[in-house]
Amino acid sequence: MELPAIVVNVKTYRQATGEAAVSLAHIMEEVRRETGASLVIAVQAADIYRVAQAVDIPVWAQHLDPVTYGSHTGWTLPESLVEAGACGVLLNHSEHQLRIADIAAALGRARKAGLETIVCADNIAVTRAVAALEPDLVAVEPPGLIGGEVSVTSAEPEIVVGAVSAVESISPRTAVLCGAGVKTGEDIRTALELGAAGVLLASGVVKAAHPKKVLLEMAEALIPQ
Amino acid sequence: MELPAIVVNVKTYRQATGEAAVSLAHIMEEVRRETGASLVIAVQAADIYRVAQAVDIPVWAQHLDPVTYGSHTGWTLPESLVEAGACGVLLNHSEHQLRIADIAAALGRARKAGLETIVCADNIAVTRAVAALEPDLVAVEPPGLIGGEVSVTSAEPEIVVGAVSAVESISPRTAVLCGAGVKTGEDIRTALELGAAGVLLASGVVKAAHPKKVLLEMAEALIPQ
Amino acid sequence: MELPAIVVNVKTYRQATGEAAVSLAHIMEEVRRETGASLVIAVQAADIYRVAQAVDIPVWAQHLDPVTYGSHTGWTLPESLVEAGACGVLLNHSEHQLRIADIAAALGRARKAGLETIVCADNIAVTRAVAALEPDLVAVEPPGLIGGEVSVTSAEPEIVVGAVSAVESISPRTAVLCGAGVKTGEDIRTALELGAAGVLLASGVVKAAHPKKVLLEMAEALIPQ
Amino acid sequence: MELPAIVVNVKTYRQATGEAAVSLAHIMEEVRRETGASLVIAVQAADIYRVAQAVDIPVWAQHLDPVTYGSHTGWTLPESLVEAGACGVLLNHSEHQLRIADIAAALGRARKAGLETIVCADNIAVTRAVAALEPDLVAVEPPGLIGGEVSVTSAEPEIVVGAVSAVESISPRTAVLCGAGVKTGEDIRTALELGAAGVLLASGVVKAAHPKKVLLEMAEALIPQ
Repeated sequence: MELPAIVVNVKTYRQATGEAAVSLAHIMEEVRRETGASLVIAVQAADIYRVAQAVDIPVWAQHLDPVTYGSHTGWTLPESLVEAGACGVLLNHSEHQLRIADIAAALGRARKAGLETIVCADNIAVTRAVAALEPDLVAVEPPGLIGGEVSVTSAEPEIVVGAVSAVESISPRTAVLCGAGVKTGEDIRTALELGAAGVLLASGVVKAAHPKKVLLEMAEALIPQ
Repeated sequence: MELPAIVVNVKTYRQATGEAAVSLAHIMEEVRRETGASLVIAVQAADIYRVAQAVDIPVWAQHLDPVTYGSHTGWTLPESLVEAGACGVLLNHSEHQLRIADIAAALGRARKAGLETIVCADNIAVTRAVAALEPDLVAVEPPGLIGGEVSVTSAEPEIVVGAVSAVESISPRTAVLCGAGVKTGEDIRTALELGAAGVLLASGVVKAAHPKKVLLEMAEALIPQ
Repeated sequence: MELPAIVVNVKTYRQATGEAAVSLAHIMEEVRRETGASLVIAVQAADIYRVAQAVDIPVWAQHLDPVTYGSHTGWTLPESLVEAGACGVLLNHSEHQLRIADIAAALGRARKAGLETIVCADNIAVTRAVAALEPDLVAVEPPGLIGGEVSVTSAEPEIVVGAVSAVESISPRTAVLCGAGVKTGEDIRTALELGAAGVLLASGVVKAAHPKKVLLEMAEALIPQ
Repeated sequence: MELPAIVVNVKTYRQATGEAAVSLAHIMEEVRRETGASLVIAVQAADIYRVAQAVDIPVWAQHLDPVTYGSHTGWTLPESLVEAGACGVLLNHSEHQLRIADIAAALGRARKAGLETIVCADNIAVTRAVAALEPDLVAVEPPGLIGGEVSVTSAEPEIVVGAVSAVESISPRTAVLCGAGVKTGEDIRTALELGAAGVLLASGVVKAAHPKKVLLEMAEALIPQ
């Protein structure tokens, strides 16, 4: 992933399921074209193929299971995501927490399949723990702020600074995103000032009345003039 | 689902992931055209869209989570499957067992989204329990025979008969499939004679040297001349 | 279990952990002695032995895992509960939901170890499903009412009647308890009138200012003069 | 825990359930008395009270859930273990793996309740991750060797050395145990030479024909003359 970046996790929002996911991805592609900012969309597994067929920005998966080719009915095979067009995968989102051994195994499987990885963490202790597994990125999101009105960058800047510092010491190759409540250009600027390599966000874009307007403002903050 | 039917669960087999899933679906569509047999393919979530775009036979999902539109990162929303082109969903496969409350909730969500349902069961006790939730179909598969050389219809015909009888008494609207080790036309004929409305199978087709030949033999056994 | 009965599930309440569990069990034993009512206490695994050593009323476990003697670190072996003095076990409480195959397996293991069984269900559909597994008792508890001020017997009497009727038709040997919000003698009387064989309750007794007074009132309602 | 130490995890073995757990603890207490070695027994939750009442060696739990006093039916409350007499708790054994957020929460709850902690890890990557949560001890056990004939100390000494070094750099306050296949005094000596502060073992003692003989040999190796 080109950094700094804005990663939009569309979760299972109605505004970004199926054809609506394609529409949002098109908007993000326009903003990318107009600003040059690095934008990534993480969609539901069933939507990866149609979105990846439709746009040129990176499409990510929201989860994978550490399974291999074989008898694993209903689980998410890393290679199926790659074949559908995914470039990367979120792991251990606070809405989808994983066992530590499964995160380690999932990272190994993702690397082998050629997927970049973001591992989510709720707090600094967990940030340290997942950093020790050396993913490409860690995203720290205080769960109490997810989906809320106040950005982590103003409510708990110390968690961003602490995460950046912890990851630097444990896995220097890993970049840090922050998230929860992020919805303005100002939030992006602050995130970068605090040492983050970008943000992971969801409702701030997906549920916005005018997603393009919000994305443009954020994208411009990401790419200083 | 048009009954009797052959449901092919491709699991996460390499032979039916991504473009290979499309190829297998094309073969099944040919066999459908040549024999008139009712054939269904259950593919990985990431493959539903491309397979459903490519063929006219029913495409099913292998799993869904009982979530709604909203904040459910990485879980499988029923509506995302429908938008991708799925007609139905397997639930509670022995490789992906669910909590009873989640099966009940998943059935409600599937119905609301417009998906048909097959709930899998390992034995007669569990068949009775899941039948009480009144899915469209129950598939009984003794786990010890899954992926093996001997068909449930010859190894444990009494489990098929017992499942048919149990479901008849608890949920008359629910049809019964059987599975595990099924791979010949003879297995299909026996399944129907034992009262099943078809079969759920996987490796017998997906890993066959000549899937079309195997499917043709089974399809012909399904549709008596 | 002698029916009708009042089953007190003490959960992990501070008022009934460790020595406090023994004290509550002593109170229940007194009420048993004074009224003749059938009272059962379901305690935490770590408290079974000391409670069972201290009182003569039946002591139950709140959960078990369907494991056998062997390599199952940290799981709850049925035989360990029996050796500690348990007579029975709750399964699938809404706070501890299980996979359907695990409920079936747990019932088999409990029977083999000599434990009676109550399987909990949130609604009538799940009541039907778990009744099909033929436990000794089913306890129906609408989760929205658990721990609340209004008893299921007045808020949703139809769920009690429906559960009794469903269980009667699917597993005549299984008795039905109801629970959620139960805290008065009147609630007990209504439960029995609706066809239940007793109640499963928790906070109504454990968190009462005067547990003995509450228990006496309920016990007297259970045993009509 | 007094280090170096031998921690015997009795799992759900028949040879150490209920009264048999008390008997094994008595043997360990004798060996402690005769050699001065630090010996710890980790028993099933239902056995903690009776074992802790019977012996003076430290009794540990095999698991806890990160719950608090309240409505958590059937889960293992840290305080219930302490009241029963436990001094510490194993977490994340390869037979009972936990989500990373739950390990972090469980460590917090254990500390608050006054329990020492051992977090288990299967490999060096997971050792690093759990060390970042700063438990009292980490136990590294390659799962392929658990319950087997060959000790980790001879089969994979590099994993012990690697774990010791990784923990030293990430959490200097955390000690390292090793385990899997450990059953002789020689295995103990090698473990200490490789930098471990002791061993975590199970079948090597519990299923031994003469547990006392095995324990004596190990204890003597632990306490050099």
